Amino acid sequence: MTDLARLVVDIADEMAMQTERGEVATYIAPLAAIDPRRFGLCVVTADGAVHMAGDALEPFSIQSISKVFALTLALGKVGEALWQRVGREPSGTSFNSIVQLEREQGIPRNPFINAGALVVADVNLAGHAPRLALGELLRFVRHVADDETIAIDEAVARAEQATGFRNIALASYMKAFGNIRHAPDLTLGVYFHQCAIAMSCLQLAKAGRYLMQGGLLERGGMRVVPARRARRINALMLTCGHYDASGDFAFRVGLPGKSGVGGGILAVAPGRASIAVWSPGLNANGNSQLGTLALERLAEATGWSVFGAG
Amino acid sequence: MTDLARLVVDIADEMAMQTERGEVATYIAPLAAIDPRRFGLCVVTADGAVHMAGDALEPFSIQSISKVFALTLALGKVGEALWQRVGREPSGTSFNSIVQLEREQGIPRNPFINAGALVVADVNLAGHAPRLALGELLRFVRHVADDETIAIDEAVARAEQATGFRNIALASYMKAFGNIRHAPDLTLGVYFHQCAIAMSCLQLAKAGRYLMQGGLLERGGMRVVPARRARRINALMLTCGHYDASGDFAFRVGLPGKSGVGGGILAVAPGRASIAVWSPGLNANGNSQLGTLALERLAEATGWSVFGAG
Amino acid sequence: MTDLARLVVDIADEMAMQTERGEVATYIAPLAAIDPRRFGLCVVTADGAVHMAGDALEPFSIQSISKVFALTLALGKVGEALWQRVGREPSGTSFNSIVQLEREQGIPRNPFINAGALVVADVNLAGHAPRLALGELLRFVRHVADDETIAIDEAVARAEQATGFRNIALASYMKAFGNIRHAPDLTLGVYFHQCAIAMSCLQLAKAGRYLMQGGLLERGGMRVVPARRARRINALMLTCGHYDASGDFAFRVGLPGKSGVGGGILAVAPGRASIAVWSPGLNANGNSQLGTLALERLAEATGWSVFGAG
Amino acid sequence: MTDLARLVVDIADEMAMQTERGEVATYIAPLAAIDPRRFGLCVVTADGAVHMAGDALEPFSIQSISKVFALTLALGKVGEALWQRVGREPSGTSFNSIVQLEREQGIPRNPFINAGALVVADVNLAGHAPRLALGELLRFVRHVADDETIAIDEAVARAEQATGFRNIALASYMKAFGNIRHAPDLTLGVYFHQCAIAMSCLQLAKAGRYLMQGGLLERGGMRVVPARRARRINALMLTCGHYDASGDFAFRVGLPGKSGVGGGILAVAPGRASIAVWSPGLNANGNSQLGTLALERLAEATGWSVFGAG
Repeated sequence: MTDLARLVVDIADEMAMQTERGEVATYIAPLAAIDPRRFGLCVVTADGAVHMAGDALEPFSIQSISKVFALTLALGKVGEALWQRVGREPSGTSFNSIVQLEREQGIPRNPFINAGALVVADVNLAGHAPRLALGELLRFVRHVADDETIAIDEAVARAEQATGFRNIALASYMKAFGNIRHAPDLTLGVYFHQCAIAMSCLQLAKAGRYLMQGGLLERGGMRVVPARRARRINALMLTCGHYDASGDFAFRVGLPGKSGVGGGILAVAPGRASIAVWSPGLNANGNSQLGTLALERLAEATGWSVFGAG
Repeated sequence: MTDLARLVVDIADEMAMQTERGEVATYIAPLAAIDPRRFGLCVVTADGAVHMAGDALEPFSIQSISKVFALTLALGKVGEALWQRVGREPSGTSFNSIVQLEREQGIPRNPFINAGALVVADVNLAGHAPRLALGELLRFVRHVADDETIAIDEAVARAEQATGFRNIALASYMKAFGNIRHAPDLTLGVYFHQCAIAMSCLQLAKAGRYLMQGGLLERGGMRVVPARRARRINALMLTCGHYDASGDFAFRVGLPGKSGVGGGILAVAPGRASIAVWSPGLNANGNSQLGTLALERLAEATGWSVFGAG
Repeated sequence: MTDLARLVVDIADEMAMQTERGEVATYIAPLAAIDPRRFGLCVVTADGAVHMAGDALEPFSIQSISKVFALTLALGKVGEALWQRVGREPSGTSFNSIVQLEREQGIPRNPFINAGALVVADVNLAGHAPRLALGELLRFVRHVADDETIAIDEAVARAEQATGFRNIALASYMKAFGNIRHAPDLTLGVYFHQCAIAMSCLQLAKAGRYLMQGGLLERGGMRVVPARRARRINALMLTCGHYDASGDFAFRVGLPGKSGVGGGILAVAPGRASIAVWSPGLNANGNSQLGTLALERLAEATGWSVFGAG
Repeated sequence: MTDLARLVVDIADEMAMQTERGEVATYIAPLAAIDPRRFGLCVVTADGAVHMAGDALEPFSIQSISKVFALTLALGKVGEALWQRVGREPSGTSFNSIVQLEREQGIPRNPFINAGALVVADVNLAGHAPRLALGELLRFVRHVADDETIAIDEAVARAEQATGFRNIALASYMKAFGNIRHAPDLTLGVYFHQCAIAMSCLQLAKAGRYLMQGGLLERGGMRVVPARRARRINALMLTCGHYDASGDFAFRVGLPGKSGVGGGILAVAPGRASIAVWSPGLNANGNSQLGTLALERLAEATGWSVFGAG
């Protein structure tokens, strides 16, 4: 067993003993029903090795982590023009704040807050029926994860749609500024469904490989995006990936990462590893309590922080 | 001539031909008088090599870059307790905004916006007369830069003091919340003087070495701070070092960096290089226009971005 | 001809010569098509006399003036309990701001900004189908105006519905906080239709009589609301009736008043007169430019300001 | 005994039995020391009659009520030009908020929030030494109150100065925008001293007579300000006189009024009465708990509400 394999198991063991596990999201029934004791971790390294522990094969709702893949797709469609409709700065406010939109005339601060992700969904919808736009995103995720079984959890999507009034407000508000181009209902439909994609830690860690290795699916393999774009997506994940706790995540973990309210986090150690962790209990900022802690342990032990080793 | 030496010279040459150089700060006379055509660049690598071009030996007002050194000093004094008085999140607003302070009860969002730097100055002032607190900071900067000639430009300090009403407002406001412990005049005095430290690119790049190499002054040399603290300061520089353009700097350059209104930027490529650049013209966000561009070129050519190479 | 009759004609004559008439609202076609030269004025006094000039018999879209009647109806239904769902303070922001809702957890500042009027519409909808709720409001307006011909302009209602994304955002946002009880679509339907009521100055001035005379339809006549409630609605009109220009209207005119984007204003001189004015050009704050000026002239000449005569 | 005389006594008696008296201000020792059981009421009517009850002859710190007199003085000096430096709109925020100043570039929303009162003090200071500016204000107050014994409580002024960091912040902040013309220390000195004027209910009610009777000191007497100005000051008191509870005061009492943190309120029934009430316990909005209640009773019983009788 390699040192890394051992470390992954040790971290999972330590997490199993934690009693402060945060609070599982309760705003929709399918999330509220998840057992807070679940924990999964998967690390895929640049040489192709895969290390897993805990519930790493159990699919969970990736929620906002889907914003990374949707952003990648949108940049492929419209390139840098995207930045005329969405900013690249940390928001300084919570994930679903509408205040900033009023001050900045309907331009969301970044593609990882909900408003920004709605604009990205609107871009991905262009020229498509919603079903086809979702199909395209799902094909992309299956491709980068190398797994055709990945699917959308329709029960989650329906529950989101029935309760998502803040997101409806955000979309309607941006529509008033002309920054949503389709009927808000359609854009929201795409958004609610992309958030309902279910993936396991293994699938998610594999899906993040192109961000680890300069845009390539694997070392010497197929190019998913140009190297510069992979770097830039990583930069956005680091500055904006954890909403109003992005600074804290950078401070503690030191890796680009994107969290979801389902308790998952995708983290990238450029040139070294793509990491997925899942624990459904959330901290006060809405990010996985043990997921963050597990990544802090992993980065400390491996020296993978982008801010230096030693 | 090594590749890196050549690159440094090439970048300086390219910058010399740029016509869009931004606007020199005019709020105080000593800064307004600086020739916008000045440009300096210095790179100190992990192996101790030094590469310079342009006006790299010319001292300039480091202004907010001093916040990095003041923060390092304060963390040495009070450690993690500092984070009870100042946050670690990007602000989402401009460098001297007072709005956030009202919402968050006098706790600044991070140590690199002015309000946060005033709290840090207040920490450094504890138990000292202002003159001694400044002496301590200056000794620290001289130590890490290995240069006893570094000094405070008194004309700049006086000019700051005569016009710094927004900073007086920030300090008074936090005093009302109890988050400034000394008479605001004293804390402001320390702050205005630390911003008036004058350094050349060479001095600044050398002063940044401990952030590049895990807290060591040089490879195998004296420890300035623990490795973890160096990483964390780098993380703060990346998420908060360029005010409300921190996301954009991370996106374009991909290195932890701290800018000053004097036109300087200190950037750190962990494990590889400490870099200082100076060009007095500022962009719309108050960061050096050509300094940012030069760093973008350097990071692109060297692959030093913390977000991946390739 | 009485002095007041003469004054009303003189004011209309003066307004006809004004060249700075503001800008007609253009967000929906039916409003954009209105001739900016229209001007109507009607004064109904406590003794029942009616004085008119200009286009006082021409129906126009009363828009936000309908909020006064909808509020009266809602207070009749739920009484003081209404104030648990909507405040009574000036907003300090524009009529359709969403910022305040986030800070105050979905409770609008007053019933005359759009968010507050949506809550009022939601109250009036309780226990009814939307069509019946609208019928009830229309019956109330016809009753107080003593005119069965008053109707809703369906073309206006449809146009509002097709472009009202900010109002959809406000309703969805308050739904997320639980302060809209019905499906937002239904509440919005009631709101868009009530804004589309068309009335002439004569009809509107007659409809305002109960606010002039302590809740009575006419001196010695039928009681519409208790005297205290009439006073309180007047107080709300004075402090909140002109959005973010309410202070200026109180300063210049000195009467409780409510403006609409169609260019109408209903003003009340308690114990003396109910006044309606219409001129479709709006000032920078979205209130009728000449309507405000005409009321300023009228109040100055009559000494009707609630803030003193002399 | 007239009905009004009886009413004044009855109200004082009712207030004496109230147990919920609010909280006395504690931010400075001289205010914290006041007995919460004090209550005074004085009504001066248009015919010159004076009715008093309770501690109506006891001087108290008028605090923000001084803003009414300072505003009257400033309008006499610079007239309508004042409105280029301060607005006339309700603030929608608390009395000492700094947020609005940032959004509106250093222009306070109205002359009755602290920032606006500081601008007014700055206007009154023009061309004077602070001592002389204060002397002029004091002479004005003594003149309208017809009482040469009114004085500044120096202990209160000193205590304000020692703890007034939020006001220092406001003044410094506006100085940064150029909307404070003198050294902030001087302007603040005038402001802190004017707030420390001590007056009894009798003195205060007499001082408010010019606002009751169209600018005249007494019926047929000397003119203090033009009638229009008196009306406009009343309008500002009604829309802005109770900070973020101005709407509620208009709703409940229906009279122009200005409160102070010392527990006093000056209220004006135009054409009818000038009223002063004092009870040191404050409600959650910082306005006198029993003072407001007493005025509500008085207005209800007399029908003096500007929004109608009956």
